[in-house]
Amino acid sequence: MRSGTEPDGADAGTPDRATARPSGRDRPDATDRPAGPEWSGTGPGTGDTTPARPGGPAWNGWEPGAAPALSAPARRVLARLLGATEDTPSVPVSEVRLPASALPADTRRRLVELLGAEHVRTDRAARLAHAGGRSYLDLVRLRAGDASAAPDAVLTPAADQLQAVLATCVDTDTAVVPYGGGTSVVGGVSGAHRGGHAALVALDLSRLDRLVALDETAQTATFGAGMRGPDVERALAHRGYTLGHFPQSYRYSTVGGWVATRSAGQASTGYGRIDELVHAVRCVTPTGELVLGRGPASAAGPDLLGLAVGSEGTLGVLTEATLAVRRIPPHRRYEGWSLPDLRAGLDALRELAQRLGPGLAPDVCRLSDADETRSTFLLSGSLSTRLARGYLAARGRHPGCLAIFGWEGEPDQVAFRHRAATRVLRAHGGLPLGAAAGRSWLHGRFAAPNLRDTLLDHGLLVETLETAADFGALPSLHARIRRSLRDSLGRVMVLSHVSHLYRSGASLYVTVLAARDPADPVGQWTAAKRAVTETILAGGGTLTHHHAVGADHRDFLGAEVGTAGLALLRAVKATMDPTGIMNPAVLLPPAS
Amino acid sequence: MRSGTEPDGADAGTPDRATARPSGRDRPDATDRPAGPEWSGTGPGTGDTTPARPGGPAWNGWEPGAAPALSAPARRVLARLLGATEDTPSVPVSEVRLPASALPADTRRRLVELLGAEHVRTDRAARLAHAGGRSYLDLVRLRAGDASAAPDAVLTPAADQLQAVLATCVDTDTAVVPYGGGTSVVGGVSGAHRGGHAALVALDLSRLDRLVALDETAQTATFGAGMRGPDVERALAHRGYTLGHFPQSYRYSTVGGWVATRSAGQASTGYGRIDELVHAVRCVTPTGELVLGRGPASAAGPDLLGLAVGSEGTLGVLTEATLAVRRIPPHRRYEGWSLPDLRAGLDALRELAQRLGPGLAPDVCRLSDADETRSTFLLSGSLSTRLARGYLAARGRHPGCLAIFGWEGEPDQVAFRHRAATRVLRAHGGLPLGAAAGRSWLHGRFAAPNLRDTLLDHGLLVETLETAADFGALPSLHARIRRSLRDSLGRVMVLSHVSHLYRSGASLYVTVLAARDPADPVGQWTAAKRAVTETILAGGGTLTHHHAVGADHRDFLGAEVGTAGLALLRAVKATMDPTGIMNPAVLLPPAS
Repeated sequence: MRSGTEPDGADAGTPDRATARPSGRDRPDATDRPAGPEWSGTGPGTGDTTPARPGGPAWNGWEPGAAPALSAPARRVLARLLGATEDTPSVPVSEVRLPASALPADTRRRLVELLGAEHVRTDRAARLAHAGGRSYLDLVRLRAGDASAAPDAVLTPAADQLQAVLATCVDTDTAVVPYGGGTSVVGGVSGAHRGGHAALVALDLSRLDRLVALDETAQTATFGAGMRGPDVERALAHRGYTLGHFPQSYRYSTVGGWVATRSAGQASTGYGRIDELVHAVRCVTPTGELVLGRGPASAAGPDLLGLAVGSEGTLGVLTEATLAVRRIPPHRRYEGWSLPDLRAGLDALRELAQRLGPGLAPDVCRLSDADETRSTFLLSGSLSTRLARGYLAARGRHPGCLAIFGWEGEPDQVAFRHRAATRVLRAHGGLPLGAAAGRSWLHGRFAAPNLRDTLLDHGLLVETLETAADFGALPSLHARIRRSLRDSLGRVMVLSHVSHLYRSGASLYVTVLAARDPADPVGQWTAAKRAVTETILAGGGTLTHHHAVGADHRDFLGAEVGTAGLALLRAVKATMDPTGIMNPAVLLPPAS
Repeated sequence: MRSGTEPDGADAGTPDRATARPSGRDRPDATDRPAGPEWSGTGPGTGDTTPARPGGPAWNGWEPGAAPALSAPARRVLARLLGATEDTPSVPVSEVRLPASALPADTRRRLVELLGAEHVRTDRAARLAHAGGRSYLDLVRLRAGDASAAPDAVLTPAADQLQAVLATCVDTDTAVVPYGGGTSVVGGVSGAHRGGHAALVALDLSRLDRLVALDETAQTATFGAGMRGPDVERALAHRGYTLGHFPQSYRYSTVGGWVATRSAGQASTGYGRIDELVHAVRCVTPTGELVLGRGPASAAGPDLLGLAVGSEGTLGVLTEATLAVRRIPPHRRYEGWSLPDLRAGLDALRELAQRLGPGLAPDVCRLSDADETRSTFLLSGSLSTRLARGYLAARGRHPGCLAIFGWEGEPDQVAFRHRAATRVLRAHGGLPLGAAAGRSWLHGRFAAPNLRDTLLDHGLLVETLETAADFGALPSLHARIRRSLRDSLGRVMVLSHVSHLYRSGASLYVTVLAARDPADPVGQWTAAKRAVTETILAGGGTLTHHHAVGADHRDFLGAEVGTAGLALLRAVKATMDPTGIMNPAVLLPPAS
């Protein structure tokens, strides 16, 4: 099992690999740690060259060394659509400005007494590796050398030390940011705002990385909160099971993060969102442990489990989650389709969701709009893509809307469900594009953040946003979101897809590209984000479908849950976290 | 649309029908209202002969005039198994002891100012019609003439008057019991305990009885909380839709009651529990209105909708719920099967739940244990039952375990799913009993409470209890529950079935019959219930699967949600209901 003190493994950056990287996403290794004034390492951590989070994302991007080069046609199209941009490489890690740690010596001493010095890190490497999440704004700041979102220290406690750690943090007025994979795209793990507390620590859960139990009769498994996606699937596959939860952040994100943020996962149409998979959690809070969830279903009052799920570290630290798992399906079938346009595609999805319904509808359903379809064709130079374009062009479809459907299960079930979906799709003008398109999507489905790294190097603004709405609202919501982003950003590419089907509606996921404003990139996106969020809420969309609230959406939470809802959330937080140390910058807007 | 002031309709008891009833379940009509000292009517309500709840259950039982006669063989078997009992008819309504209303004149005046005198009833008929729910203990008390659980008054406000009503109740220290169908079997609508408040009113929601909206694109419908089951289905059927929610209390229970108590419904395996169907609610609380639920799915923090669902009237009054509905399925197939024994049947159900899963598994799955199977055969004298018994006996099955499966949907889907289930059932020794058994179950599925009325007349204790557990725990839980009831009650019939399949487990529903202790029927059952509840919790079962907590389970809630969970619930209640007027006797145990 991996632990926070394990030597840097093959996945983590080593100097030679870092040098070989195409776009400056080097890791905060000791080799390039400067001795400048911002260096704040104190105590035994100082000389430690181990990154606190081995195998995590790059300090300033996604997968270390994996950003793809842009093809010449892609660069030409981007320049034509968005205007010329200057290249904007990241600063080297040695130039990153890290404020001195504000952790008082006495607090540090007490934490070291509890955990041992190797689990109380205040060195530059550890703090930089936990300096915020992976949103566009996080990365823009880090790439410009601003690590002011770093915590004052990084703790890596064992599960049975958590209650004592929180007691010490209450005692010493230390804010706590529970930290899983660090992949939040909504400012969920930022240390930038201490919420008025004396200091702020990241509570890295990487030592809670075990498959605690697998109940093959109930088909549930209990995971340590710090277990990452690939480790989850590896441990289950060994016993013949899968969780089937594949968010785009899968490689780095953790069970605890998924539960704390209501992650959806790309196969949620068939497998269910994490909030549908969760049977039980343990959550250590400053006032005691919540142990929630019993049996397959209960009518014993309000759903308290549903309060811990989505709590984003504001109540306490999720330490374990029991989730539904399944036998690895013996058969999978993934394929591409082309629908004439978004409206026809949405009608088809709605019929799949309502006439077939969960269990019979495909397990994966994704429908790109025309712009996302064009971009997919542009960015993929594969033979199968070129063949598909030719096939569609010959039928007068330029380019229509690309869709991906996937079925998993016993062969006869997959065959029956595939036939049923095929009838629906053909009735709505669908043209099958075959299994190559499905394979291509499966192959690339976790890679988009690497492409983002490339685009960030090329002077672009690139960010995603997402919502969900009833079927009736989706077409106009799609149009309004596009208009809002154009109004805010001028020349813009807005690429959208619908996925995550429910009987009543679906999610809508939007990628936006524009030329970055080099003078004020943060202000540029902050204004656009505010406008588009207001548009989404006015158009009947949810504030977020699976990215969570974090810091970025918290000012808008009242629009979704109302004044009385905010009062409820505040009461819940005050009960479990009376001094307000738990992740103070997220979820709840500051009391006005 | 029905309203609280509509003259008594065909469904409600009229004197001649009441006279014709076989077992004393007459309604509290004005015709037999006594002028004795307990009569507490004051004001304009006094002379009103309209029962406040037209078409509701009998004042002391279930469907007025519908209790069946027991066959001679059934009586012989009951006497053989449980011992001889004396007949125990209900007292006539004229002999019921009703305490004087404690509603202060000033409170009454203020409520009448708000609502009009016809909607503030303190007369005997109205109070008796709202004197508690339909648990065994409720009925035993009422049948013995004890109406001490009656409220001091019955209010029938319109939706837009509710906020003002609650404000007045806060002002006047009046406890409020939200009242839907009055069918709680866990003491959920009892007025017996005022929780230290000056008076207690039942807030009858019968005027909130409209289908507010039907969104055919999202396939959701918004219902007034007071709408009863048959009215829901009638309004939807008119448009081609169904809710598919059929709890045993369907004829009388309401949308608001289902949501407030996490009702399951007999087809929950396919249609989902009410908590899975609910998209949004409005809940008027003493401190403001909660408007919760947006879009098909959201990651915007903890699930507040799930706090209102199951809140049992302790936070406020649910006024509207938006629920998922479906097109009426074009094809239904229901049939009976026989499984060799409970263990084989459970293995078959588990395979249906896990290998087929929701959407492919039957929509209705019920498996009776051997004792319930024997009783079903005994109580049904139909030709098809006799044929089924002969068929099974010829195959050496005496009697095995009866199961009912139902499929609803498009014909090809039903055919495919039926084939898949048939393979599973045959592999576990299942023998098909044909469609007649399915029809028989569909025909009788709401009738059990009528049979209870008959058994109550014959000196029996008859009550149900229910739980849910993971598949691994169900066999031993079944055995432990039977043992506990035998230990408590001596000679006893314990009839169980498993239903409501989930991937990880299922519900277990138990009917218990014994000779009633005429000296202390309440004490007899209270002791047995306490023991069996402790057994359930120790055996891994939930405190309740769909009956809710009410007054009867509240002392055990801490065993399910823990000390921290209780603290959360108290904080939530204190936020919405700071003076504690809302349904003070249910859900939360008294603070110790």
